Amino acid sequence: MDIAFLLYENMTSLDFIGPYQVFAMVPGARIHLVATEAGPVRTDAGVRIYAEQRLEEVPRADILVVPGSSDPSKPMGDERVLSWLRTVDESSKWTTSVCTGSLILGAAGLLKGKRATTHWMVTDALRQFGATPVAERVVFDGKLVAAAGVSAGIDMALTLVAKEFGDMVAQSVQLGIEYDPAPPFATGSLRSAPPAVIEATKAMLQPSVRS
Amino acid sequence: MDIAFLLYENMTSLDFIGPYQVFAMVPGARIHLVATEAGPVRTDAGVRIYAEQRLEEVPRADILVVPGSSDPSKPMGDERVLSWLRTVDESSKWTTSVCTGSLILGAAGLLKGKRATTHWMVTDALRQFGATPVAERVVFDGKLVAAAGVSAGIDMALTLVAKEFGDMVAQSVQLGIEYDPAPPFATGSLRSAPPAVIEATKAMLQPSVRS
Repeated sequence: MDIAFLLYENMTSLDFIGPYQVFAMVPGARIHLVATEAGPVRTDAGVRIYAEQRLEEVPRADILVVPGSSDPSKPMGDERVLSWLRTVDESSKWTTSVCTGSLILGAAGLLKGKRATTHWMVTDALRQFGATPVAERVVFDGKLVAAAGVSAGIDMALTLVAKEFGDMVAQSVQLGIEYDPAPPFATGSLRSAPPAVIEATKAMLQPSVRS
Repeated sequence: MDIAFLLYENMTSLDFIGPYQVFAMVPGARIHLVATEAGPVRTDAGVRIYAEQRLEEVPRADILVVPGSSDPSKPMGDERVLSWLRTVDESSKWTTSVCTGSLILGAAGLLKGKRATTHWMVTDALRQFGATPVAERVVFDGKLVAAAGVSAGIDMALTLVAKEFGDMVAQSVQLGIEYDPAPPFATGSLRSAPPAVIEATKAMLQPSVRS
């Protein structure tokens, strides 16, 4: 099974590494780290991560993963990236996104008439692509799978591993990464966070999160 | 506040990126990505991540973070790394580890008489360093903070952000990364996983996890 990740300048590191860590532990999974050019990609927090292949070297994948970014406008406006996404989607078994990665899928025209999700700050931006925003952590619509913000990619990847490789493999990966989360606060979603935290978070992210 | 991450060949990508993503979002945090040499470091799942500074360029930090690896034996046997850890620890406010990163701290002599934790598969290995293994997700002993396997680094980092920057900042970061985890299974810890999953996970990890 071939799993391709789109890497790009300014992507969010955990959007990528969350599902990457899960899929990379599955026996038999072949991972492809793909960008417009092979080489280092600077994430929006600064750390540089290596893309190993150019878009044109990976024309197909069983699972396509598009991570998000605090500013996904560059890949959303790059016709070479959008065309590659459409090409891979033609034969993919699953086309997936984390966080604002769904906006990139939307720009490629792949969300029309679909239910999808994204980071809670930009949920309404999905409508411009003909998608119906859904405030859930992992949203399936046919072969399209969208995860909510940043950390939700871990839950999405484990769910997909269960579907493709069976519950035992997914459960083993989950135990392997000791994913028994114990968040120190109950403020991880728009439903649970108090208004003051929501406002503070918006102020913290506002300069960077754009759709 | 200066936060230094030790990067090294074969480290586990999510051990590093989990806390990195959390700390990097804190306003005012200065992140240092440190390795024996600046340049790309290949993680144990394959992806290459860039270290930006040599050990000797970063002799101090307020928070030191040591990620784990499926095979931490190389840094554990590298006196230059161990000496750097001892130097940074001398003036650090917090010395922390994720997963088998605690074994590297142990090899540096920093766990003597301390309570600590690590990946569940190698808990007993802590005893050789004079530490008392504790089966908890995040273990504090004075300024030493050890997180359990891989994904536990996210919980540890959020907990430390709350202590250093206040609950409001930590809660905002948690909402910013939408950390409202919904694991698909209840098999993420040794306590909750059924015996068959534990055996399958050991078989999956056995070739690689060594202390």
